Amino acid sequence: MQKYIEIIEQDKNRHLNELIEFLKFPSISSQSEHKPDMENCASWLVNNLNNSGIKNTKIIPTHGHSIVYGEWLEACKDAPTILIYGHYDVQPVDPVELWTSKPFEPEIRNGKIWARGTADDKGQLFCHVKAIESHFKANGKLPVNVKILFEGEEEAMESHLDDFIIQNAKLLSCDTAVISDTEWFTEGLPTICYGLRGITLAEVTVTGPNRDVHSGSFGGGIDNPLNVLCWMVTQLRDRYGRIRVPGFYDNIVELTDEEREAFKLLPYDEKLYCEDLGINSVFGEIGYSTLERVWARPSLDLNGIVGGYTGEGAKTIIPSKASAKISMRLVPNQEPEDIANKIEFYLKLIAPPTVKVEVIAKAGGKPVLTPLNDPAIKAASRALKLAFGKEPVFMREGGSIPVAELFQSVLKANTIFIGFGLPTDNIHSPNENFDLNNFYNGIKAIAYFLDESSK
Amino acid sequence: MQKYIEIIEQDKNRHLNELIEFLKFPSISSQSEHKPDMENCASWLVNNLNNSGIKNTKIIPTHGHSIVYGEWLEACKDAPTILIYGHYDVQPVDPVELWTSKPFEPEIRNGKIWARGTADDKGQLFCHVKAIESHFKANGKLPVNVKILFEGEEEAMESHLDDFIIQNAKLLSCDTAVISDTEWFTEGLPTICYGLRGITLAEVTVTGPNRDVHSGSFGGGIDNPLNVLCWMVTQLRDRYGRIRVPGFYDNIVELTDEEREAFKLLPYDEKLYCEDLGINSVFGEIGYSTLERVWARPSLDLNGIVGGYTGEGAKTIIPSKASAKISMRLVPNQEPEDIANKIEFYLKLIAPPTVKVEVIAKAGGKPVLTPLNDPAIKAASRALKLAFGKEPVFMREGGSIPVAELFQSVLKANTIFIGFGLPTDNIHSPNENFDLNNFYNGIKAIAYFLDESSK
Repeated sequence: MQKYIEIIEQDKNRHLNELIEFLKFPSISSQSEHKPDMENCASWLVNNLNNSGIKNTKIIPTHGHSIVYGEWLEACKDAPTILIYGHYDVQPVDPVELWTSKPFEPEIRNGKIWARGTADDKGQLFCHVKAIESHFKANGKLPVNVKILFEGEEEAMESHLDDFIIQNAKLLSCDTAVISDTEWFTEGLPTICYGLRGITLAEVTVTGPNRDVHSGSFGGGIDNPLNVLCWMVTQLRDRYGRIRVPGFYDNIVELTDEEREAFKLLPYDEKLYCEDLGINSVFGEIGYSTLERVWARPSLDLNGIVGGYTGEGAKTIIPSKASAKISMRLVPNQEPEDIANKIEFYLKLIAPPTVKVEVIAKAGGKPVLTPLNDPAIKAASRALKLAFGKEPVFMREGGSIPVAELFQSVLKANTIFIGFGLPTDNIHSPNENFDLNNFYNGIKAIAYFLDESSK
Repeated sequence: MQKYIEIIEQDKNRHLNELIEFLKFPSISSQSEHKPDMENCASWLVNNLNNSGIKNTKIIPTHGHSIVYGEWLEACKDAPTILIYGHYDVQPVDPVELWTSKPFEPEIRNGKIWARGTADDKGQLFCHVKAIESHFKANGKLPVNVKILFEGEEEAMESHLDDFIIQNAKLLSCDTAVISDTEWFTEGLPTICYGLRGITLAEVTVTGPNRDVHSGSFGGGIDNPLNVLCWMVTQLRDRYGRIRVPGFYDNIVELTDEEREAFKLLPYDEKLYCEDLGINSVFGEIGYSTLERVWARPSLDLNGIVGGYTGEGAKTIIPSKASAKISMRLVPNQEPEDIANKIEFYLKLIAPPTVKVEVIAKAGGKPVLTPLNDPAIKAASRALKLAFGKEPVFMREGGSIPVAELFQSVLKANTIFIGFGLPTDNIHSPNENFDLNNFYNGIKAIAYFLDESSK
């Protein structure tokens, strides 16, 4: 057994006690009355990083909450540099009456620790800190270079991290970024997430007559912006779920056979999936499984439409205006800007001359993807196998995590997600919790990962 | 010159003064504080009817405002019975500060009388009362049997007239109903309206997942009720404006050549029509002019849609639910109930299995149409020519007037609309007015009409 693993075993009670201290700070970033708690929490964290062996630690003020930075860059030549990202702020706790134990008085029950921030993200973040500590205690050094970037605005409305990353690309430069802020595919299955979809948003507004007019006096005489809008958005997808915007699929990276095999191994139960959502059947692009469609194929959804009379009963009008909001989820190598241009062009192209059509399309985050044969993924796989005694599974994620996109675009670094959360953790809800085995073995997994990354 | 016309000429100042008295009652049916004004107005009207020669006048209470009834049924055998409908209630007057003269203190300016209710409908209703009076003064009798039905709830939210008509079909039985509560096609053009469209309403609700879900985590995986709803409603019309609900056009009465010719004679200016509405172009079923489409062809319009996030900015969800309101305007011989069944059947037929679809379709009023060769239309044409020195034009109306539909379905009587209003009358708006020439000649027109109806 590696010495650092022995040390983790010996220190596990202290690690838990330190985590409890960390959890007691009500570091709710979105509520201004917790500003002092945020500051105290950041100070505590810097102190803990110092004690763990990290150097050059500092609290970096922003226009919002502070960033905690630290580094250790004395590894052997050729050792890679790993950027570790996490966040020390937490979600609000309302409705507080639904909590079994108080959100900022951590309790141990049923092999789990219960408090706000246990899984999202203090518990997971702390696995990294204690893994680093174990290496220093075992060998006085780390097997790789490490940079620490812990933010305090992940759960806030506004974040200043983007600017910080853009302005400090050199400080943060690294080979790989690691984030532990995700869940396992299901309990008992160590999981590596290696890809996210990007996003482009669009809003279409169709204007017909300059006022709402009577559907009796004008119906059949003039075009109806609501009918037109529905027709236009219906042109965006064909009946097989493929998106009809010209050029939409240009250059997209197809799923590899390896990925499709990996997804097939996941214990995904479509019946349960449908039951949970209360639907009879899934739907989407023909030729791909549901997980493939959600994680690795682009999608286009209406997020909202409004137009005309929507109250109770009837109001028989032809409305003057109607508009729809659309989100498109993108996969590599779709460029959000390019997709924004394409949907804008297409919607304007098909706009009938009987109405006025405005389209505002806006590029969001880019898709990110770390190839499965990336050395960091290989290292993480070995580490999870060693820590949990089980081969990890691989997944991608249908949503976007903006910071990963920045690591990719600004730092030119791949990101991997080695999460230790479970679907039962109640993040963002009352009774948030974190499995203690995942906490202890998570520390070991990160310690192994640092070691394996040096090989 | 007919004696009754001479008498109208002699009495015109008294008629105007009586109208001014009539207009001074603030008979706003929708505002409960005006209940006493409504009662006083009804009493005044009964009194005026009595003085004009009408018999069996009575104020008939309802659960709302009273109905004023009267009759004279002593015409020669074979003379037809004419039912005259009007309403003595008026719209509210807000915003009162925009009125040049006070709404219940009638003023004469520029050849018009200005007050609330002048055109809609006291002035027009009063043409009938004074026309009847002139016949009694000239000959001591009327050329036809007459029944008077003046309601006080035409502008109210709730009307009790329907029940009254259904329960008193025998009392109200007649050969033709006449309503003077419409406008001329344009100034200088005496107009007869002889048809209305009917209506069927539908509401479609599409339910997908049992909660709003994240468009990143689920987009591409499951169907989106908003996308489905837009697709479904798009199936209701083809690109040429024809309605695709199977059987929708079954048995419909086509426009006659005579009607098409009559509509072509109207001074309709499509450029001005579009300018007024702020649109570049009209739209609708190919093969019909705009007036033909609006008056004599069925239509289908979305009145409102709601689903998902409709506030500012973006919320990237797949909504759980979306719904649309639809109105269909019908022409003879479409049955609103049959059309309700057909759209419900069609929407359920095309509903995809990936979502739940509910459809509630509701029959409204039936279309009404009095053939252009109906004797009452012929009589009205001659009367308008005599009174205004000009052949009348013929139009239909795209909307519905429920009372006309009841006359048709309950009394089995055709209805014709001989209105004296102008498009500049500002009905339902500040500064409502009624042209005095149309008032004086309107009395004559109705007097002629009663006479011509006996021939």
